[in-house]
Amino acid sequence: MPSGTLLYAQSGGVTAVINATASGVISEARARKVKVLAARNGILGALREDLIDTGKESAAAIRGLAHTPGGAFGSCRYKLKSLEADRARYERLLEVLRAHDVRWFLYNGGNDSADTALKVSQLAAEFDYPLTCIGVPKTIDNDLAVTDCCPGFGSAAKYTAVSVREAALDVAAMADTSTKVFVYEAMGRHAGWLAAAAGLAGQGPDDAPHIILFPERAYDEAVFLAQVKKVVAKVGYCVVVASEGIQTADGRFVADAGGGKDSFGHTQLGGVASYLAGKVKDELGFKVHWTLPDYLQRSARHIASQTDLLQAQAVGKAAVQFALAGRNATMPVIRRTSDKPYRWKIESAPLDKVANHEKKMPAGFLRKDGFGITANARRYLEPLIRGEAYPPYGRDGIPAYVTLKNVAVKKKLPGWDG
Amino acid sequence: MPSGTLLYAQSGGVTAVINATASGVISEARARKVKVLAARNGILGALREDLIDTGKESAAAIRGLAHTPGGAFGSCRYKLKSLEADRARYERLLEVLRAHDVRWFLYNGGNDSADTALKVSQLAAEFDYPLTCIGVPKTIDNDLAVTDCCPGFGSAAKYTAVSVREAALDVAAMADTSTKVFVYEAMGRHAGWLAAAAGLAGQGPDDAPHIILFPERAYDEAVFLAQVKKVVAKVGYCVVVASEGIQTADGRFVADAGGGKDSFGHTQLGGVASYLAGKVKDELGFKVHWTLPDYLQRSARHIASQTDLLQAQAVGKAAVQFALAGRNATMPVIRRTSDKPYRWKIESAPLDKVANHEKKMPAGFLRKDGFGITANARRYLEPLIRGEAYPPYGRDGIPAYVTLKNVAVKKKLPGWDG
Repeated sequence: MPSGTLLYAQSGGVTAVINATASGVISEARARKVKVLAARNGILGALREDLIDTGKESAAAIRGLAHTPGGAFGSCRYKLKSLEADRARYERLLEVLRAHDVRWFLYNGGNDSADTALKVSQLAAEFDYPLTCIGVPKTIDNDLAVTDCCPGFGSAAKYTAVSVREAALDVAAMADTSTKVFVYEAMGRHAGWLAAAAGLAGQGPDDAPHIILFPERAYDEAVFLAQVKKVVAKVGYCVVVASEGIQTADGRFVADAGGGKDSFGHTQLGGVASYLAGKVKDELGFKVHWTLPDYLQRSARHIASQTDLLQAQAVGKAAVQFALAGRNATMPVIRRTSDKPYRWKIESAPLDKVANHEKKMPAGFLRKDGFGITANARRYLEPLIRGEAYPPYGRDGIPAYVTLKNVAVKKKLPGWDG
Repeated sequence: MPSGTLLYAQSGGVTAVINATASGVISEARARKVKVLAARNGILGALREDLIDTGKESAAAIRGLAHTPGGAFGSCRYKLKSLEADRARYERLLEVLRAHDVRWFLYNGGNDSADTALKVSQLAAEFDYPLTCIGVPKTIDNDLAVTDCCPGFGSAAKYTAVSVREAALDVAAMADTSTKVFVYEAMGRHAGWLAAAAGLAGQGPDDAPHIILFPERAYDEAVFLAQVKKVVAKVGYCVVVASEGIQTADGRFVADAGGGKDSFGHTQLGGVASYLAGKVKDELGFKVHWTLPDYLQRSARHIASQTDLLQAQAVGKAAVQFALAGRNATMPVIRRTSDKPYRWKIESAPLDKVANHEKKMPAGFLRKDGFGITANARRYLEPLIRGEAYPPYGRDGIPAYVTLKNVAVKKKLPGWDG
């Protein structure tokens, strides 16, 4: 039984399967007799010394995490700056780790979290504190470098493709006398991965979505409206999927144009779909509906992808193995070894290759006209949404998601007023 | 083998299971050797003599309809007026029915459709044309009279409850440093049935949704904002579900306040959730997110309720039986015979008891403070979302929804310029 404690924390926007990673971490650590603490609300819990004793949770609860969305220990949006700018916070962090004999620190998040884990490992080295830091990948944005895909993305992608397909059947049925244009807003501020996944909803040239708007291409309103008009004339209706991050050629976010203040000075919360729908209505006169799924798309564990679930669990398990093997400042990443049949394995990547890089969609994934995805994109995306990983349901018709006890361990340090 | 043809048409907003009713109709008719035509795009197809020969569809396709959302033959928003005001259209309709030897007319829709079916039956009687008219219930709004519930509602209700539960787990995980208030907009312009279904997402007093806003209660902004503040102070975050139809005490729709024109005269499409989120942000200063699921909530066949599916099929089957038995101007309705265990059966109701009535939520379903549902409401709603009725999926991770051939039968009449 290794001496010392493993500290696990969740960071940034949660996903349908980040708890599956937590489940993988805790199960693997238990199998190896390693004690696991979890920081409440991500790195903040570590700074505040607000640590949860996962040993108080039953084996059933830890298994149940694998089918529970959200972040079971709490997550946070809290970015530590550079070691120089935020030195006091990093030192406090190290102090907490030391007080609880933490020898392995697993930080489950995106780019920023990889960066934080890297910096903590550097500081520990500077202070000669024996610590192994592991970044564990997670993000529905799918924008982490090195890894072939990111746990959390596949399930959000499946939600997106299925929802767009279903809504398209609705619009198709009603288009003769009612809604002719439907706009779906997908998350993705910098990269259009989720919008691209909507492309899996259809196969043929007349299948929805008929128009996808990517942040990787400048939004040209005249060209967009002309395309909508053309599609409605040909197909009878038009389904548009727009990434929240689309920008005009001069770099203005379209979402910002959609909101603002009304004439009384009250906030108008808009967004891309609302803006585009308004334009279609005003300029083309079509009846239009639009949807903003927002958090539903990243918490929809009920329609999780089996591929995504398995990968989320696998990176959790591998993170513990890497930690115990002392592979400091690394991240377990997914390597695709074959497209057909789809095969993947877990490898190790140095954190400095992941931190602060952002993976954009390859240019070859976007159709020439910029309104759809290519066969290459489809080959990449399709395996990621494959397989259904339903949660168990109660007799009440609601998924039996687990709630942890989240018992705090006793503090050993004075309070932190950071 | 009965002589004559059965005509089936879909009307109004489609649902996740209206095609399951179509499947029930066609299967039952085939078993009884009755020929089924379907009107393309609802009653409009009947007026245009645009009729589909369902005999061209394979048995597998008809079975597949039971797991396919949308309206497979097309639906419409097209309301026939009174017999006097729209006499020419009713007579044209009768002419088309006569030309295709239609002896049974099944109209699958809500209040308006029940009214149309009733009027067609009256006109047929006047002209001594032997026709049996059956209304077949369908609406996610759950506002049809007589029937205990409406096919389509249970699946939309399940989508709502599950989505709210999942989003609430997301918000709970992030609330410490990010979003504290989340607003979900549910369909329901006149009755808050779907908003009420969101109440099934939680059990305890601190469970989401913390506030439900019903069209049955006047919206009081000060009271609402005070409640949000109170919940955030107590629970740490607040999940709000708002019915699109909420109104102020003087009868103004809150949704209308959320939209309008921006300072350039462009349309601002708002809605209730957008409006409420703006208020929470401006007045309380909380970070807020909001969702407008729109059509996703009524087309989400992937999360259909098993109860709903069975009832949708059952009313389709019963409609054919009623038709062949000559029970003119009736509707198969669902009667609940027991709450625990939940039991139901199909009965017959006269169309004039259904047409143009609207079932509101009983006052006893709303909590005294107006922000939640009672145990009575829970007892009514819970069985309706019970059971999971997953569609089959393809290897591509997308549900294998069927597309019909929809072959038109040859026209026998001159064109209609209605």
